[in-house]
Amino acid sequence: MGETVRMGHGAGGKMMADLIQEVFVPPLDNPHLRQLADSTVLQLGSEGSRLAVSTDSFVVRPLFFPGGDIGSLAVHGTVNDLAMRGARPLWLTAAFILEEGLPLDDLRRIVHSMADAARQAGVLVVAGDTKVVERGHGDGVYINTTGVGIVPDGVDIGPHRIRPGDVILLSGPVGDHGIAVLSQREGLGFETDLVSDSASLSGLVEALLTAAPHAHCLRDPTRGGVAAALNELAVAANVGVEIDEAAVPVRPAVAAACEMLGFDPLVVANEGKLVAFVPPEEAEAALEALRAHPLGQDAARIGVVTAEHPGMVLARTGIGGRRVVDMPLGELLPRIC
Amino acid sequence: MGETVRMGHGAGGKMMADLIQEVFVPPLDNPHLRQLADSTVLQLGSEGSRLAVSTDSFVVRPLFFPGGDIGSLAVHGTVNDLAMRGARPLWLTAAFILEEGLPLDDLRRIVHSMADAARQAGVLVVAGDTKVVERGHGDGVYINTTGVGIVPDGVDIGPHRIRPGDVILLSGPVGDHGIAVLSQREGLGFETDLVSDSASLSGLVEALLTAAPHAHCLRDPTRGGVAAALNELAVAANVGVEIDEAAVPVRPAVAAACEMLGFDPLVVANEGKLVAFVPPEEAEAALEALRAHPLGQDAARIGVVTAEHPGMVLARTGIGGRRVVDMPLGELLPRIC
Repeated sequence: MGETVRMGHGAGGKMMADLIQEVFVPPLDNPHLRQLADSTVLQLGSEGSRLAVSTDSFVVRPLFFPGGDIGSLAVHGTVNDLAMRGARPLWLTAAFILEEGLPLDDLRRIVHSMADAARQAGVLVVAGDTKVVERGHGDGVYINTTGVGIVPDGVDIGPHRIRPGDVILLSGPVGDHGIAVLSQREGLGFETDLVSDSASLSGLVEALLTAAPHAHCLRDPTRGGVAAALNELAVAANVGVEIDEAAVPVRPAVAAACEMLGFDPLVVANEGKLVAFVPPEEAEAALEALRAHPLGQDAARIGVVTAEHPGMVLARTGIGGRRVVDMPLGELLPRIC
Repeated sequence: MGETVRMGHGAGGKMMADLIQEVFVPPLDNPHLRQLADSTVLQLGSEGSRLAVSTDSFVVRPLFFPGGDIGSLAVHGTVNDLAMRGARPLWLTAAFILEEGLPLDDLRRIVHSMADAARQAGVLVVAGDTKVVERGHGDGVYINTTGVGIVPDGVDIGPHRIRPGDVILLSGPVGDHGIAVLSQREGLGFETDLVSDSASLSGLVEALLTAAPHAHCLRDPTRGGVAAALNELAVAANVGVEIDEAAVPVRPAVAAACEMLGFDPLVVANEGKLVAFVPPEEAEAALEALRAHPLGQDAARIGVVTAEHPGMVLARTGIGGRRVVDMPLGELLPRIC
């Protein structure tokens, strides 16, 4: 019996990265896939538009959680991957794998939630697909959304533009989505009022890019949290990242849950937050723009990019020390999106 | 306890059409989705390129079957949906839902098969996603592929162009895919040499459109078979369809299996066939072009479009009678793609 797929292969950490690098990239290799970004930019002909394209399957459990459900999440997740390239999200496809026995009322509620989220994000669901699997071969419903957006002329946002000296901003408190879903799933009931931050970030990105037109890179820290996002970018851009742990906003309910479970809030998933790498001269304007937007009121400056320790993320701790913020391994929080 | 999802909701027949019309279309409504085609065409700006976009999730069981596997099928299925709009398929996204415990060697084999199929079809896999679900919440692997292609200037192929008098061509024998998969799944072992027809049809379409540039409509008769494809098009175009049952090619092994199981070969799935609606003056050239291509050697003229009995498909039977070819209801052959 050889190796098999384990839950950690899907959790957004090192195990998943290794699986992708070993199993998927070599046979399918091409310059787009090699970027390993959350979306890719496609050029139509030599003079044509540039399209951003992103795909995501959603297997969140439970289907309904405080602050959202699999339908709204499936819209937000893909819209956000497009927005992180500075693209204007336009179109989504939606493909459903339904489990035999799913109450049609649950499906109706999910589709309505999806429709509301699409309307709010300004995208159209232009094509779809429906498959059904036998009871015990699915989990209610899995949804794939694939998004297509237009990258405006002149916009070029990605890890390749990160430079030492860049200021790192975070749009708000971390871990709300992961802890809200986990709390619902395990019936842990740490708290009563924590809800997922699931939201479309395209408006926030627009505000940010208006104030900071030379922003270098954006990333939404979903599976694997801020720790995974910063580690991936540090490696991709071959730079060091240094953050001030005390500057990272965390709600008391999330902090308490993480302490109880032994989690680092930096590895817990978000679905409505972004980290932005901006040149220092635009950092203040960018931070103000984030804070002026309803989804960025608690935005904070959390760190800087350095030329030292390339590929590594360090945190200054509360007591003046430094620690390595590792890429999470993988098994912590599966099926969070 | 209200209504729930049943297997027939995914089988490509009337139950699925009703579910889509009732649950998906009203909340998500827009002109693209309303077409209910296998792909949609998106216009980039007023002067820009036209994109064809299509999405499909694949849940075929077993993962490996005579003539293919879920990896090659996931490429062919989506590439073919683009080709049916006359589009040149360019890019695919690929999203995997893996079940805990899947042997990594199976996954490697599937990804390699996908890569080979993509190379042969001339498409790049440009973005991907990996999720993992617990043992017993999936079935090895489910794959979503979403395809983007370019529709060449002047090409306009779709049900809206079907006219009475159009000749209906079929590119080869029906039912190979459905019976090959079913035979493998149920261990029925009707025969030893039947293999799935899973193949990329973009080359065949190119040859067809060169010979018959005014072809009106193309459709690959997958789930629900030729019966579902013709019924959908008869309704969409508000025309009658009349076919000559004896003219529809069926391999002896498929005919024998269908007789044993009580299936009409017209409702069995294909993954490498197309039906073409062409104006009569181009019918002969189109048929010759199909027959000159390796994937269309057994192409046949199977019927015509009439102004009578709009929305209905009639077959002339071997003994000179006529029967209604109904839209299949749904429960026959689930998880065939």
